Formats: sequence, structure tokens, C-alpha cells
Amino acid sequence: MRLSELAEKLGCRLVGNGNIEIYRLAPLHEAGEGDLAFMASAVDAPTLKKGHASAVIVREGSPPCSKPTLLTNDPYLTFVQALRLLYTPDRPTLGVHPSCVIQDGVRLEEDVAIGPLSVVEAGVSIGRRSIVGAQVYIGKESRIGADCRLYPQVMIREGVEIGDRVIIHSGTVIGSDGFGYVRGERGTRIKIPQVGRVILEDDVEIGANVTIDRATLGVTRIKRGTKIDNLVQIAHNVVVGADTVIAALSGISGSTTIGDRVTLAGQVGIVDHVEIGDDATVGAQAGVAKSLPPESVVLGSPAVPHLTFKRNVAAARRLPQILNTLKRIEARLVSLERASGTGEPRTQTSPSTAERGVR
Amino acid sequence: MRLSELAEKLGCRLVGNGNIEIYRLAPLHEAGEGDLAFMASAVDAPTLKKGHASAVIVREGSPPCSKPTLLTNDPYLTFVQALRLLYTPDRPTLGVHPSCVIQDGVRLEEDVAIGPLSVVEAGVSIGRRSIVGAQVYIGKESRIGADCRLYPQVMIREGVEIGDRVIIHSGTVIGSDGFGYVRGERGTRIKIPQVGRVILEDDVEIGANVTIDRATLGVTRIKRGTKIDNLVQIAHNVVVGADTVIAALSGISGSTTIGDRVTLAGQVGIVDHVEIGDDATVGAQAGVAKSLPPESVVLGSPAVPHLTFKRNVAAARRLPQILNTLKRIEARLVSLERASGTGEPRTQTSPSTAERGVR
Amino acid sequence: MRLSELAEKLGCRLVGNGNIEIYRLAPLHEAGEGDLAFMASAVDAPTLKKGHASAVIVREGSPPCSKPTLLTNDPYLTFVQALRLLYTPDRPTLGVHPSCVIQDGVRLEEDVAIGPLSVVEAGVSIGRRSIVGAQVYIGKESRIGADCRLYPQVMIREGVEIGDRVIIHSGTVIGSDGFGYVRGERGTRIKIPQVGRVILEDDVEIGANVTIDRATLGVTRIKRGTKIDNLVQIAHNVVVGADTVIAALSGISGSTTIGDRVTLAGQVGIVDHVEIGDDATVGAQAGVAKSLPPESVVLGSPAVPHLTFKRNVAAARRLPQILNTLKRIEARLVSLERASGTGEPRTQTSPSTAERGVR
Repeated sequence: MRLSELAEKLGCRLVGNGNIEIYRLAPLHEAGEGDLAFMASAVDAPTLKKGHASAVIVREGSPPCSKPTLLTNDPYLTFVQALRLLYTPDRPTLGVHPSCVIQDGVRLEEDVAIGPLSVVEAGVSIGRRSIVGAQVYIGKESRIGADCRLYPQVMIREGVEIGDRVIIHSGTVIGSDGFGYVRGERGTRIKIPQVGRVILEDDVEIGANVTIDRATLGVTRIKRGTKIDNLVQIAHNVVVGADTVIAALSGISGSTTIGDRVTLAGQVGIVDHVEIGDDATVGAQAGVAKSLPPESVVLGSPAVPHLTFKRNVAAARRLPQILNTLKRIEARLVSLERASGTGEPRTQTSPSTAERGVR
Repeated sequence: MRLSELAEKLGCRLVGNGNIEIYRLAPLHEAGEGDLAFMASAVDAPTLKKGHASAVIVREGSPPCSKPTLLTNDPYLTFVQALRLLYTPDRPTLGVHPSCVIQDGVRLEEDVAIGPLSVVEAGVSIGRRSIVGAQVYIGKESRIGADCRLYPQVMIREGVEIGDRVIIHSGTVIGSDGFGYVRGERGTRIKIPQVGRVILEDDVEIGANVTIDRATLGVTRIKRGTKIDNLVQIAHNVVVGADTVIAALSGISGSTTIGDRVTLAGQVGIVDHVEIGDDATVGAQAGVAKSLPPESVVLGSPAVPHLTFKRNVAAARRLPQILNTLKRIEARLVSLERASGTGEPRTQTSPSTAERGVR
Repeated sequence: MRLSELAEKLGCRLVGNGNIEIYRLAPLHEAGEGDLAFMASAVDAPTLKKGHASAVIVREGSPPCSKPTLLTNDPYLTFVQALRLLYTPDRPTLGVHPSCVIQDGVRLEEDVAIGPLSVVEAGVSIGRRSIVGAQVYIGKESRIGADCRLYPQVMIREGVEIGDRVIIHSGTVIGSDGFGYVRGERGTRIKIPQVGRVILEDDVEIGANVTIDRATLGVTRIKRGTKIDNLVQIAHNVVVGADTVIAALSGISGSTTIGDRVTLAGQVGIVDHVEIGDDATVGAQAGVAKSLPPESVVLGSPAVPHLTFKRNVAAARRLPQILNTLKRIEARLVSLERASGTGEPRTQTSPSTAERGVR
């Protein structure tokens, strides 16, 4: 695509030669002939000069630069939009690959594509233009909306409802049984049938090798626009709000509710039956053991407000010094007591905390 | 099913009209016409009154209620038993789907079902009434017992032994190689062949996207009745006892032994070559670095007894206050020393711990 | 294999009858007739005596033993080499199983084996002697080197490059989209197209149910000889150095660089955009929030040098005692102040830290 055409589509001001052809986008230090690069800030200017990018996206008001330039108020957003223009995702062959096993009563809307060796059980419906990869399984009576993309080896159990424009990456399991048992005799456990459903609303994206359990009764729900990273566990009856982001290896226990626009960083754990308020942020590896009000920012395991966490970490770093200080204070007390003739009321058979030191 | 029939099968005392038909079970606040709900405690009575449940399971001795009622000493257990009566799991078509690849010398007992596009390698045997989902792989010489259920896309490597009534959820890998290497020259690593097996005993249930590695030599074993949640890692040569429960995202390192009736909460990590005693409980996100005696209850990383953990957490919260207290004590010491004419023995060139404060 | 033949191939000194036949290797306590066992240290001598091993590998210079013995300077390495001699991995039938779906323009070198129901997309090439298991997916234009092994149900997305002698275990997803969005209006998120690649260099081994995301632009790279355990997450644009080891359930965030010969223990988390120096070691469950110099050894969340961590943990254990010590010091101060006639400068309306105690 010509740079001038890109400029117009992206709504950017063009400075320099607009006739050059742009074939790819590339990081500044890797960009070569035909590449459009993106300069996050002025500190990257030397990298740009040394590099071979054919053109560059730069923030309005930056110092002028020797290459053809697209000027914009938000270079990163413009870069992403350029990516979306230049890289149109692969459209697989429409229709159902003959190697698939499609059971009775399946309803496929227009322009659906299903890759080789997939299995679609009875009563499933798939909306317009949705792309189902190879070796996917879709269980009985599940419904997939329009413009969805299920990558190869996704597994959807029965009775799952998926909205429009949902993306699910490979290896992910939607609708597996919740982890629920009652105690029987002598420590054995009796399985609680898991007969609820899963609903993924519009514009949800789920990473690879994620597990989202069906509800015991009722619904496990991921609301509109929420994005979930790889290897995340969502237990039975969890509700995740809209536009929330959950990073890799996090786990949310049964019946917990996560609000809208929440951010869970990586490896976060949240106990069952709590509520995380809207716009809360939970730092990496935090363990949340109780409900959080909206806009909370917490860290640590057990999680505490982030300022408390930072103060505690700083104080903890002082601990060895505190022990030394205590030792010195006790020595000064002894001197004072000797001088004044008062004595330490407790006998000294066991050494004091500080005297034992820290190894 | 009629309420009176349910009452009889569940061994409950029926109060009110037993002729009504029950179609579903539902949570109290969602229950409608034809639904049997379950009241955990008297605090839910207002929800019941406002709701539309046709009948309710209530603890014996509770205040009378306006709806047809099943009275029981354990409402939750009764609720689960009612679920098991009303929701009979789907029985798939018996026999082997013609799209499967079944190698020579496979032995299938009566009433086995194998879903589309599964692969069963040579020498496998599968017991009566076991259900193998679509796109499952079962490796050479593996044995599956009776009444098992393998959900779609389960992967069983060669030489795995699975007992009766075992349930394995989708995406789970049983019998992958253990993670074992010896150091070669210049930091390279030489793979240790992993030639052992995996045994899952009767009544084990394994969640989705779990990994259970085969033993290097010998056996990785999960004993009778143990339940493992999603995304759990069980390393080579681990032995997990009977009736144990392991929550999501936990990992158990090589050659560790877990006792009977142990509970590991979510995201627990246990080092290699230790023993966790029977009836131990390990709290969420705990990191266990040494063996634990039976009935231990531990928390934290590194894990400590839960009372110690709680005391330490409470004391840690005091740290900033401790620093202030130390500062005040030092000021008082200075006053006393001035008054008595004794002096601080150390020079004051570096400020004391407390004086530096906490940011 | 005869023991004398094994001794020769392993370069060991043989003591005792070399004519016995060795069929298997086994742990000392499980070994029986026909088994070669391995004695790690002299403390195992009683186990050997009681056991039924036919022969044993023992360190040179150990006390003599009653069984036929292979003497070596490194018994563990010799044991591993014996394993590699006695257990030749299964060679599946060469060629492509007729149930596979192989698209146009696929290039298979000599002696390739592809198991049943696999899908190989257009433009893929697979090197000599590589073994692709059943139900594997290999996306467009991906290249697999020679002597590789992809276990059943591995999923490789498009444009992935895999070196020679690479092993990938079941359920692993290579080349899924990176987790990248820009903020749109009102909290929504716009997906950043993930158009980069993944490169796995020679001799890499990847465990089961791992996820390795493709780069946004550029490459996510795992360098030569690195071994990754089960359920690990490698985000977009991560570079992992050579001969590095990453244990189960660890996660590495976007654009982070890990050096050569690094060890990450289980459940480690590393934030995005940092560098972990060569030969660094990160302890189990550690959370690394900033770059680490080479040869660092860190523990904890947030991670600190391991000696600091141990000192802090030891000091934290003292906290309740510190509170008691403070209480006693304050009592002594009061006595001294009374005796000297000076007074506590602050009023006593709120009790001091120590007086409140710890519950």
C-alpha cells in the first residue's frame, strides 16, 4: 500500500514522499526497505536514523525527521490501526471440510468455514462468517454467534452459548465440569452433577489452553469485551464483567464475581464466593481472600492495598536492622538501669530477641 | 418426576402437595415454575418467599414454609442426590464411530462407546460401559477400566493404567514424559528416557488441561477416589494418596508423595522428594519446601503452620508502627541518658533504623 | 543385553559375572530378576542387599558388593546412558497415515512418520526422520526440522520455525496470538494483530499443555537446548536463551529476555520487558519485577537475592518476639523515667504498638 493511501486511511498528516510502497510493519531496530516503523518517543530517534525503515509513524510535534513520516496524536494506536489495515487475517476456504463429522440438526449460517477433522454435535448453530479451525469439537446444542474464530483443537462442551466476534485460541476447553463434591462416608467424595452452562458474550477473546467450567446450576458468564490470556482457570458459576482483562496462569474460584474493567495480572488467585468491584486492579501473583471494593488496587498474598504492600515490603527489608537497633537499645537500658539502681524486672535466663541475632 | 416420588427416593419427609411435577433443580433466586430449590439456611427464607420455586429442600427443624417442602438433616447432600436423580448424563451412541482409527489387538468390552475421530493404538483394552469422547487418543497397551468417561480431546500416552469409574476432562494429558535431564558438557542437558508408567486408580476424577507425567522408572500413581481440578501439574514418580483433593493450577514436583485425604488449595506448589502426611491441608498459593506431618495445616510461601502464618501476617502489618515505636523509644533513651549523664555508647554518624523512617 | 556388553558400551569396569542378561532398569527397591539397578550412595547398600536386582551400577571406590557390579565415576550419568541403550523409543510406521489431511505443497523429507488424523496445511516442510503423532495440527508455511518428535494433539500455528531434534509434548500450542490490545473508547480494547512468528531452535524440548505465543511483530524465540516443563506460558516477543530450564506453571510476560543457562523453578512469574542475565536462578514461586544481572540467585515475591530472602524470612519469624521485646523495653523505660523524674513526652491516649499485642 502506498504511504499516501495509508496516511489517508489512518487520518494522519503525511510529511515527505507519499509515493513509496509499504509492505510490512516492523519494530524500529528491525525495519528494512518497505517497512513502516513506529517511534514511541523521541529517545528512539537515533535508532531510527541508523535503521532502514522506509517510513515512520511519529507523534505530532516531534522534531522533524529525515524519513517520510506519518504524524499522529497517538502513534501506538495509529501503529495498531496500520497493522489492521496491512495484515488481513487469512480467510480459509468456506464450507465444511469433507473430513468433518457433522451430526444431525446442525444449523450453519452463510459463509461459515469449518476446518478438517472437526466434530459438530447435534443441534449446534454457527453464525455468519464464523471460522472454525481444524480438529475442533462443538458439543450438543451449543450456539456460536457470527464472525467468531475458533482456532484448531478448541473444545466446546454441550450447551455453551457464544456471542458474536468471539475469538478462542487452541487447546482451550469451554464447559468442562465444575469441581464440586460433597463429602460421603469415610472421606470419600460424591460428585455434584454439573448441569449448568457457560455464556461468552460478544467480543470476548480467550487465550490458549484456558479452562472455563460450566456452572453447577445456572451460568458461568464472561461478559462483553473481556480478554483472557493463556492457561487461565475460570471455575463454575464465576461471573466476569465486561471489558475486564485477566493475564496468564490466573485462577478464579467458584461463584466469584469479577466486575467490569477489572485488571488481573499474571498468576493471580481469587477465592470462591467473593466480589471484585469494577475497575479494580490485582497485581501479579496476588492472592485475594475477600471481596474488594471498586477501584481497589491490591498486591501480595494475602492481598492488601498496594500502598500498604509497598510500605510493608519496605519495612520488612528493615527487619534485620530493627533487630540490631533493639539490641543497642537494650544495652543502653542496662547502662541506665545500672546508673540509676533500677533493675530489669524479668530474669535473664533466656536471651532477648535481639541478643539471639539473625542468621 | 413427582415431588412425592422424589421424597421417597431421597428418604425425605414431605410437607405439602406431593403431586406437583419437578423438572429441574435451580438456585433459590433463579428458581421458577417446576423447579426444586434448596435453602442452605434460614437467612434465605425471604429469597424463597419472593421467588417462584415450586418446592424447596429445607433442614429438619426449620420454621415452616409456604411451599411444598422436603425436610432432611443434610439439605446440601439431599440437593446433590436430587441432582443425580434428575439429571442422568447423556448416553452417547454405543459402539465405535466409523471415523475412528482403531489399531490391531484392541479389546473393547460390552457397551463401550467411542466418539468420532478418536485413535486407539494397538493392545489397548477398554472396560464395560466406558465412554470415550471424540478426538481422544489412547496410546499402545493402555488399559481403561469399566464405567469410565474420557471427554473429547483427552490424550493418554502408552502403557497407562486407568481403573474403574475414572473421569478425565478434555485437554488433559496423561503419561507425558517426566522433566528429567542430566548435565552434559558445557551446560547442555541430556534427556533421561522416561520409561515408567502412570496408574490412575478407581473413582479418580481429573479436570481439564491437566498434565500427569509418566515415571522415569516405576509408576506415577493417583490413588482411589482422588479428585484433581483443572490445569494441575503432577510430575514424574509422584504418588498422590486416596480421597485427596487438588485445586486448580497447583503443581507437585518429581517423586513427592502426597498422603490420603489431603487438601491442596489453588496454585499450591510442592517441591520434589518430600512427603505430605495424611489429612494435611495446604492453603492457596502456599509453597511447600519440606515434608509435612499428618494433619498439618500450612499457609504461605515458604509454608508455615497456619497459626504462625496468621500471627506473622498480623505482626508484619505492625511493622511501620514498630519503626515509629523504636523512634520514640530512642528519643526517651536520649532524654534519660542526658538526665543521668550516661551517653549513647555508639557514635551517631549513621542514623538509627527508625530515624530513617519508611517511605 | 548381556551385562558384559553393557559394561563395554558404557565404558564401565565390570566386577562379577558378566554373562547375565539385563532386560530392564529399575529403582533399587523395586528391582527384580533381570533388572539393573543404580546405587546413588553407600546409604542404599542395605536396600541393595535386601533387593532382587541382578546387577548394580556403583561409584568407583565404593565398598565391594555381592552382586555383579558396573563401576563408574558418575553412577547417575551411567544409569541414564544405560537407559538410553536399553530403551529405544518406539519407531512408528513410516509414512503418512491415510486418515490425515495433507494440503497442497507440503514437503516431507525421507523417513517421516505422521500418525492418524493429523492435519498439515499448505507449504509446510518436515525434515528427515521426524515423527509427528496422531491428531497433530501444523499450520501454513511452518517448518519442522529433522529428527523431531511431536506427540499426539500438538498444535503448531502458521509460520512457526522448528529446528532439529526438537521434542514437543501433547496439548502444547505454539504460535497462538500474543495478548495485546490498545484501549479504545469507554474502556473497550482493540486487538493488536499478532503477525510475528515463533522460532524453536535445535534440541529444544517443550512439555505438555505449554503455550508459546507468536510475536506481535518479529519473533518469539527459544534458543538451542532449552527445556521447558508442562503448563508454562511464554508470551509474545519473549526470547529465552540457550540451555535454559523452565519448570512447570511458570509464566514469562511479553518482550522479556531470559539469558543462557538460566533456571526458573516452578510457578515463577516474570514481568514484561525485563532481562534476566545468563546463569541466573529464580526460586519456586518467585515474582521477578525487574531485570536481574547474570548469576543472580533470587527468591520471593517480589524477588530479592536469596540471602536477603532467607534473612528476611528468619527476621519475620521473630516479629512476634520483637513485639514482646518492645513491650518489655517500654516498661523498663517507664521505670527509669519514674526513677529519674523525666516523663514520657507523648500523652498515653493511644496505646503503643507493643501494648496492643498480636492476636
